[in-house]
Amino acid sequence: MRKILVTGGTGFIGSHTVVELYQAGYTPIIVDNLSNSSIRILDQIEKIINYRPEFHQFDLCDESAVKSFVHNNPDISGVIHFAASKAVGESVVKPLKYYHNNFFSLINLLNAYQGAPVNFVFSSSCTVYGQPDELPVSESAPVKAAESPYGNTKQIAEEILQETAQAHDNYQIISLRYFNPVGAHASALIGELPLGVPQNLLPFITQTAIGKREKLTVFGGDYDTPDGSCVRDYIHVVDLAKAHVAAIRLLENKNPAGRYDVFNIGTGIGYSVLQAIEAFEKASGQKLNYEIGPRRDGDIVQVWGDVNKSTEKLGWKAELGIEEMMSSAWAWEKYMQENPLVE
Amino acid sequence: MRKILVTGGTGFIGSHTVVELYQAGYTPIIVDNLSNSSIRILDQIEKIINYRPEFHQFDLCDESAVKSFVHNNPDISGVIHFAASKAVGESVVKPLKYYHNNFFSLINLLNAYQGAPVNFVFSSSCTVYGQPDELPVSESAPVKAAESPYGNTKQIAEEILQETAQAHDNYQIISLRYFNPVGAHASALIGELPLGVPQNLLPFITQTAIGKREKLTVFGGDYDTPDGSCVRDYIHVVDLAKAHVAAIRLLENKNPAGRYDVFNIGTGIGYSVLQAIEAFEKASGQKLNYEIGPRRDGDIVQVWGDVNKSTEKLGWKAELGIEEMMSSAWAWEKYMQENPLVE
Repeated sequence: MRKILVTGGTGFIGSHTVVELYQAGYTPIIVDNLSNSSIRILDQIEKIINYRPEFHQFDLCDESAVKSFVHNNPDISGVIHFAASKAVGESVVKPLKYYHNNFFSLINLLNAYQGAPVNFVFSSSCTVYGQPDELPVSESAPVKAAESPYGNTKQIAEEILQETAQAHDNYQIISLRYFNPVGAHASALIGELPLGVPQNLLPFITQTAIGKREKLTVFGGDYDTPDGSCVRDYIHVVDLAKAHVAAIRLLENKNPAGRYDVFNIGTGIGYSVLQAIEAFEKASGQKLNYEIGPRRDGDIVQVWGDVNKSTEKLGWKAELGIEEMMSSAWAWEKYMQENPLVE
Repeated sequence: MRKILVTGGTGFIGSHTVVELYQAGYTPIIVDNLSNSSIRILDQIEKIINYRPEFHQFDLCDESAVKSFVHNNPDISGVIHFAASKAVGESVVKPLKYYHNNFFSLINLLNAYQGAPVNFVFSSSCTVYGQPDELPVSESAPVKAAESPYGNTKQIAEEILQETAQAHDNYQIISLRYFNPVGAHASALIGELPLGVPQNLLPFITQTAIGKREKLTVFGGDYDTPDGSCVRDYIHVVDLAKAHVAAIRLLENKNPAGRYDVFNIGTGIGYSVLQAIEAFEKASGQKLNYEIGPRRDGDIVQVWGDVNKSTEKLGWKAELGIEEMMSSAWAWEKYMQENPLVE
């Protein structure tokens, strides 16, 4: 039972990855400061896998806490690093929060593992591509200047990781560039727990459908896309979680291409916002109250991923389609209404 | 007597800036961890200005130390942030050291000043231009992908500073992009104190001339430049120090262009390595033992700065030419031989 540290393991993607790791035969160990998640997610994970993962509450920005944790847990063979601040809009208003949290946690973790062999999987994002010149966008496409401090922290983290792997042979590192994670676990026991007004489409859709929000505004209906709304590559969070297990496995098999690699994690299919709404209405049987509003500053018009490299080299492929994304997100929203996990 | 915090104030550029600040009527306060400088520089500064600056020894990567220092010194009105790891070659071998030291110190300082008005001057570098497409290179030229972790920390620091100034109106920030700092104070009491084998041309020249090194190797004699050797914009460290005083003054006068700005600090004149050697031989009366060797990986072929913006807006212009750079560097090398400041 190889032990895998999952930072941010009570978060949206983290909690699903903890479940998939355990079911794949790993022992996940969670570190989270609970700044943007609930301790009650541990109960929910336990309900799914009938096992309560080891949990440590501390802030990865605390250098000495990270050092002593790593020192006291020498049998951890892999790290999946989710813990980070992740709201694009907030990052523009509070850039120092993002540079502090996202850089300090990453650098403290890497520093704590200096000299010790470690497999490291990092949460990156398709935001590094900006608006790609070619679609689908492959991993070899140029990385563009980030439009927000959040995006910048992801881009720079990739550079730090690549240079670290080049300089020190104890690190084997994979960055996964997520497209748009949505959906929830099939059990409806875990899912996204957005605090405040959701920044992303899916929780806004489900909150509107259940009556928490009055109306959904689609930002822009006059883009140069088939129906005028933005196009995204939505990826089911359970598929995304499985990509992390695949990445750990690839690193355990000594990734033959070298000590650093990067993979797109999406379905390879683009859906417009209007298509996503339609898929939600179909999957949930709910009519959604929405309107087309003005464009939103900084939005990418359309992006979807080339997933050939992930399929071939990572041995991973998305299995769940838009219907499962929508139906699981809706089941989770209904579960939360009956079982509020956040007060 | 406005108090100015000078981080890295016992270093090469820092110590000269402390002298110029004091002579311009400011009270410099030094913070340095002495990781790459000598405490005896304080004695040297005192010999020049007949005043011993307040000195605090701690590491700016220590978040709580920075917070309590800033809390205990509310009358500091400006910060000149030199403290950083600065060896390009070392940064490739130890990238985490560079990301850790250079990011943590900067972010801790900025965080400690959240909410309090502060004028902030940052040590940036012409490395952000890479090999410019046009010469002289102006501040509006595109920033190119950094070739080393060191260069990357300077580029990203500029982004952090710009975004911070945009988001929070208590910060007024200027980044100074230095060309190649050389020379020493006219008193020959302070100058560059390179530890180990010098990475830069000038200390290598003076150490060769004085007999510490057997021979100087010029890296590449077949470049597409007038004499085949690389071309640089050398700037006298005393002129450079004065640019920091000018930047603090501009910020005190509420820089009308906004809360973030960037200036080239050079002479605007390019000298080839062979011309620099010739100028040294002339200024010192010493014949230099040198040979032309192969090109060095990663070297920029030629770069010199457009200094119009600095002249017009910063009200600063280099006053010292190549002769003073060489003669002062030589006087300092001879002083060090008689008065070794580092064991």
